[in-house]
Amino acid sequence: MSDPSLLAGLDIGGSKVLAVALELPGPDAPGRVIEQVRLTTFPGPEGVVETASRALTALAGRLAGRNGRSSTPAELFSGVGIGIPGLVDAERGAVTHAVNLGVGPGGLALADRLRRRLHLPVMVENDVNAAACGVAAHLGLDGVDLAYLSIGTGLAAGIVLNGVLRRGPHNAVGEIGHIPIDPSGPICACGQRGCLEVLVSGSAIEARWPIADATIHSAQALFDAAAAGNPRAVLIRDEMAGHLASAVRMLALTVDVDLVVLGGGVSEVGEPLREAVALALERQADGSAFLRGLDLSAKVSLVPQDQPVAAIGAALLARTDLADVETGVGVETSEDVPA
Amino acid sequence: MSDPSLLAGLDIGGSKVLAVALELPGPDAPGRVIEQVRLTTFPGPEGVVETASRALTALAGRLAGRNGRSSTPAELFSGVGIGIPGLVDAERGAVTHAVNLGVGPGGLALADRLRRRLHLPVMVENDVNAAACGVAAHLGLDGVDLAYLSIGTGLAAGIVLNGVLRRGPHNAVGEIGHIPIDPSGPICACGQRGCLEVLVSGSAIEARWPIADATIHSAQALFDAAAAGNPRAVLIRDEMAGHLASAVRMLALTVDVDLVVLGGGVSEVGEPLREAVALALERQADGSAFLRGLDLSAKVSLVPQDQPVAAIGAALLARTDLADVETGVGVETSEDVPA
Repeated sequence: MSDPSLLAGLDIGGSKVLAVALELPGPDAPGRVIEQVRLTTFPGPEGVVETASRALTALAGRLAGRNGRSSTPAELFSGVGIGIPGLVDAERGAVTHAVNLGVGPGGLALADRLRRRLHLPVMVENDVNAAACGVAAHLGLDGVDLAYLSIGTGLAAGIVLNGVLRRGPHNAVGEIGHIPIDPSGPICACGQRGCLEVLVSGSAIEARWPIADATIHSAQALFDAAAAGNPRAVLIRDEMAGHLASAVRMLALTVDVDLVVLGGGVSEVGEPLREAVALALERQADGSAFLRGLDLSAKVSLVPQDQPVAAIGAALLARTDLADVETGVGVETSEDVPA
Repeated sequence: MSDPSLLAGLDIGGSKVLAVALELPGPDAPGRVIEQVRLTTFPGPEGVVETASRALTALAGRLAGRNGRSSTPAELFSGVGIGIPGLVDAERGAVTHAVNLGVGPGGLALADRLRRRLHLPVMVENDVNAAACGVAAHLGLDGVDLAYLSIGTGLAAGIVLNGVLRRGPHNAVGEIGHIPIDPSGPICACGQRGCLEVLVSGSAIEARWPIADATIHSAQALFDAAAAGNPRAVLIRDEMAGHLASAVRMLALTVDVDLVVLGGGVSEVGEPLREAVALALERQADGSAFLRGLDLSAKVSLVPQDQPVAAIGAALLARTDLADVETGVGVETSEDVPA
């Protein structure tokens, strides 16, 4: 029998997969990561299934080793949640498109495939949505309204309202990267002009501040150069922060949230990023009593750097009865995850 | 004793107030307007209280006349809901700012004042939010996700998610009128540059297409002139439709909805407005497979012209146990409306 208090969460990225074992000691206790494994991701639909399967088997092996007995994932985990970049149909547990993983328009019925192979319940969610749930659970704010703004290759937000992940009828919730904010801006990969994502994202920063050294992030290099006083770096940093401030303002004036949490690769810059965005929000509010009243700069925070929020969030989304577990994060769905 | 199936709804505008009596025959039946009264609005905090009181007394008088007996509002209605333009603190039943009604920053404890005067439960909501509830109830779509886009003096949206009005922690839900979409646009009254509201709204249309004849609406005159082939009118109409399409796209890519319903004074233009916005959405999607996949033009509709949706929505929000009545519209609140 699987342990009902133990869940597995996977964060599958383009190059690596992180698998965590999340222990939920009781309904009122927060989850705790008791083991984790990181492996290389194999590309393509078959590669993704193989990656997930190997990661779960390795995770189970580590846990079993601690207990001195061998165990399969199905013997250890009551469920598996997978966060994956791309278009995900969470109800069907299918990845419908994931460019970075080589999953094309044909899609991949990931939950079904893995369920049949490992004999345990599997749920699949977009990685930004999973991370939003992980952040909400980590903060432990019951019924919180928050947006997790992922600044990675692209730009998108995961939105948790009243402690529940919002998916929306077309899986388009939080797709703010493709909202144009400048009619004279550059053309975006989506075909529109002046989208937020083409103005600010990991890719946009790389294009504006290219670096030869592959061991550091363009965003880190940009912020370092700006801190050292390079005037062009200061200009680009402030422009980027201004666009991120626009993203925060957009989330505040559409869905309205208590908190916007900056995450994704660019957020590894840390506190200087949060400061730059908060300052840009204050500048935007300078001439506007309306904006000052919303005090947006106080609502911006950074994702906890030491927490694998996407893997944790994915694990939490795999709980059998999502509404009953009181870690503050459920999922809005018409379909129960099979037990 | 008041009739538990009879509610009053008020839509208080800058010049007129509309009061409706809404009969709810049973938990599964939709509400039906059985009487209505329209009076002139008196300005200022005292004027607003007097306006609401007189409208309710007149409404009760009409109903009592039909029954051949005299009745007070408290004897007839189980509750009153008020939709009012401006900043509303629905939990406290207070109007915190309503420029068009002469209610300044000092505010007005409207629910308390009216409750003490008329001895019945009162709830107060922003009129756009109330209209969004009225539209959701009228459409009878249980659990629907919709945005009601009010194109009046200003531009704002009321958002109903899973059949429940979303208010948000700062009453900023749907304040899309103050999201800038053009860095080189004109300065908005809110102090920012290039806000949606300064680009498209009743006021923006009046500024671009001023007319001497006060009996018709600038928007109607603009659409008439465009339909007659005036090239400048065609240009302005298409620009306005393009900005409204941007508002629809913004709602779709932040909160994600099944339906965007065009309402407010400008929507009295009717079908030609909906057509222009749908066409603009198709043009925006021309170069973007991403947008085409969302098929936004099919999701735009017009508010029913013959339904007082704000007054109906306000009445529905006044129901004692909002969650239990199955007309598909509740309200997200931590506080019960007193019975």
